[in-house]
Amino acid sequence: MRYSPFCDRISGEGVAAWDIHQRAVHDQRAGRDVIILSIGDPDFDTPAGITDTAIASLKRGDTHYSDILGYPNLRAAIAAHHKRLSGQDVTAANVSAVAGCQPGLFAASMCLLAPGDEVVVLEPMYLTYEATIRASGATLKRVSQRPENNFHLDPADLEKAITPKTKALFFATPSNPTGAMMSAEVAKAVADIAIRHDLWVVADEVYAGLTFGKKHVSIAGLPGMGERTVTVSSLSKSHAMTGWRIGWMVGPEELIHHVHNLGLCNQYGMPPFIQHAATYALTHDVPEVEAMRQAYQRRRDTAIARLNQVPGLSCHVPEAGMFMMLDVRKTGLSAYDFAWGLYNETGVSVLDASPFGPSADGHVRVSFVIDEKSLDEACSRIARYTNTLKSVKA
Amino acid sequence: MRYSPFCDRISGEGVAAWDIHQRAVHDQRAGRDVIILSIGDPDFDTPAGITDTAIASLKRGDTHYSDILGYPNLRAAIAAHHKRLSGQDVTAANVSAVAGCQPGLFAASMCLLAPGDEVVVLEPMYLTYEATIRASGATLKRVSQRPENNFHLDPADLEKAITPKTKALFFATPSNPTGAMMSAEVAKAVADIAIRHDLWVVADEVYAGLTFGKKHVSIAGLPGMGERTVTVSSLSKSHAMTGWRIGWMVGPEELIHHVHNLGLCNQYGMPPFIQHAATYALTHDVPEVEAMRQAYQRRRDTAIARLNQVPGLSCHVPEAGMFMMLDVRKTGLSAYDFAWGLYNETGVSVLDASPFGPSADGHVRVSFVIDEKSLDEACSRIARYTNTLKSVKA
Ligand SMILES: Cc1ncc(COP(=O)(O)O)c(C=O)c1O
Ligand SMILES: Cc1ncc(COP(=O)(O)O)c(C=O)c1O
Repeated sequence: MRYSPFCDRISGEGVAAWDIHQRAVHDQRAGRDVIILSIGDPDFDTPAGITDTAIASLKRGDTHYSDILGYPNLRAAIAAHHKRLSGQDVTAANVSAVAGCQPGLFAASMCLLAPGDEVVVLEPMYLTYEATIRASGATLKRVSQRPENNFHLDPADLEKAITPKTKALFFATPSNPTGAMMSAEVAKAVADIAIRHDLWVVADEVYAGLTFGKKHVSIAGLPGMGERTVTVSSLSKSHAMTGWRIGWMVGPEELIHHVHNLGLCNQYGMPPFIQHAATYALTHDVPEVEAMRQAYQRRRDTAIARLNQVPGLSCHVPEAGMFMMLDVRKTGLSAYDFAWGLYNETGVSVLDASPFGPSADGHVRVSFVIDEKSLDEACSRIARYTNTLKSVKA
Repeated sequence: MRYSPFCDRISGEGVAAWDIHQRAVHDQRAGRDVIILSIGDPDFDTPAGITDTAIASLKRGDTHYSDILGYPNLRAAIAAHHKRLSGQDVTAANVSAVAGCQPGLFAASMCLLAPGDEVVVLEPMYLTYEATIRASGATLKRVSQRPENNFHLDPADLEKAITPKTKALFFATPSNPTGAMMSAEVAKAVADIAIRHDLWVVADEVYAGLTFGKKHVSIAGLPGMGERTVTVSSLSKSHAMTGWRIGWMVGPEELIHHVHNLGLCNQYGMPPFIQHAATYALTHDVPEVEAMRQAYQRRRDTAIARLNQVPGLSCHVPEAGMFMMLDVRKTGLSAYDFAWGLYNETGVSVLDASPFGPSADGHVRVSFVIDEKSLDEACSRIARYTNTLKSVKA
């Protein structure tokens, strides 16, 4: 039987990137001594106040169809949260709750892009972007954020990539995999370019709650950007709620109208008890959130202190998030060979980062989603393994 | 800013169909004496065993990313359920859990259809179908299931609608809004046509658990149909779980591969605690399910007994589901005027069924999602209102 061309567009090649992670999970379940640093799923439980809210809601019987865009109070809570973070003056009318940041990216792609459009993406980029953007029929044009620049954008590179076909710019700040954050200065330059070329900007801010000192900049808050920016985010990372599937899109009211139509023929609203839990998360002081952020920062500091001492390795200091890029080029191995060698010799799984984009070549992505003691042990194993490599160029 | 042509394709006109329902909900919240017979959301609570399973799972901390297609045990439970219902020999490899029947219809549309394709749909049809199918770029060709035939298909009408561009056939059995079920004989004729013209068949079986005596026939179970049929369903109706957003697609393994790719760039898996609740629902005896089915059947019988006595009205006996088609043509009013007149005079909201398709012209859709006492009162009001209509042709 014949499938649609849509199926070809969404068949990403990035899938093989996860082989090592699947293998590690499999081996761990089989009882092998494995330390998994290859995933972006918090090791923390969802804070109890949030879970308790969902349970109370389930007990009340909040199990019926709900508003396609989310309940008004959830949308208002998201608007207030986004306004605090970005400075952009939005209301509930600019908001749709969606089933996570990823569904928000998908909806943005489908509602903004069409075959023939070019989308500029800043790489290294999150692995789902290619399929998500290509789903619409648009094509991707990658702009490098180079390791020499600590994975930050040089706006001149962006300017060069724009053609008359360019319709939108997609990026994540803070970034996965690099943890780099777009500075206010670069955001201003990007905004100028977007306005000058009349582009949509889709800003993925799913890690905006996990910054390590530097202030997050939402491009949506800059002058002239509200009308052309879609901000997509979720509670997945900041609130350890990856499995809940709840996030949001913030953008022009007309976009929200289209997202409503898409909701009617696809998701048909999020579970009421999940919406109530999310509303709680956004409107209450949840102390675990700051505690988790601090834990990621401590883990980052631990990993950097340990790994920067190892001849042949050098760490890019992430400004946010739950990942670090480890430059392994001086070991003489490809990131792929390093990652598999490390895994086979020591049971520590990290990701070869090159599928995230050419700028990530020669780097592995290390996640901080295990307790500090295990992380310390993982660093010892990484050091031991690296020291066995004959080819290290000091 | 410019939006994509996708936005035009999903902007259904069916939206105005719900005005009367929105109005009734609004008036009810404002304290007016309103009886709502205009929605397809069960008035029952989700059975306690299912809710308790979700709560226990939340308490265990099952709040992390899960398998994109659903956990293996949920997929196996769905496969077993589908096999029991349809006789089709499937395994978990033929199954994807999805966030409801509607997301399953959307995924089927996107993975099977493309611009230039024609899709034959059997009308009256559920209101979301137009946007769901057009989302892919395909166009719809409606085949009538006429009231004279109690809203059943005449296969000859289907045969006539097929062109070289026809790619798929979409239908729901049991049907919303009519409650008609496709007989084994018609299913056989439809299967012959689908095989002869090499068509995909997308069968929406979301009401298959709510039949009133006649045996449900899954076209997927007929010889030669497994390879070309996508069966889409959910727990929404049978288990009073509309708000949970959990359902499934059953089809060829290759389809499931594409649905996996779509899941990676859109939904990214369903919440673990919802999956566990669904697995419970499908693998345990849940006595409330049969009790609810019986309640719908009793309500149907009550409504028919009461309304068939009213001069000017005549009921189509639904074979399944939670709706009935009430023929109001003899009142001399359009279904639209009848519905609004009834609402304005008595506070009973029913839906003008004509947006479901031309065969539904002159009918209103009455839902059975209130207790029998309120339903009885609603019938009294419908009778009283109809009796005031001077134009009734007896
Ligand atoms: C940059 C980025 N965007 C989006 C997502 C998906 O987030 P969500 O769970 O909210 O769909 C991830 C998850 O890893 C991510 O790293
Ligand atoms: C025929 C039909 N299909 C699909 C759906 C949507 O079901 P779900 O809640 O599982 O998405 C409905 C809901 O009314 C329906 O009537």
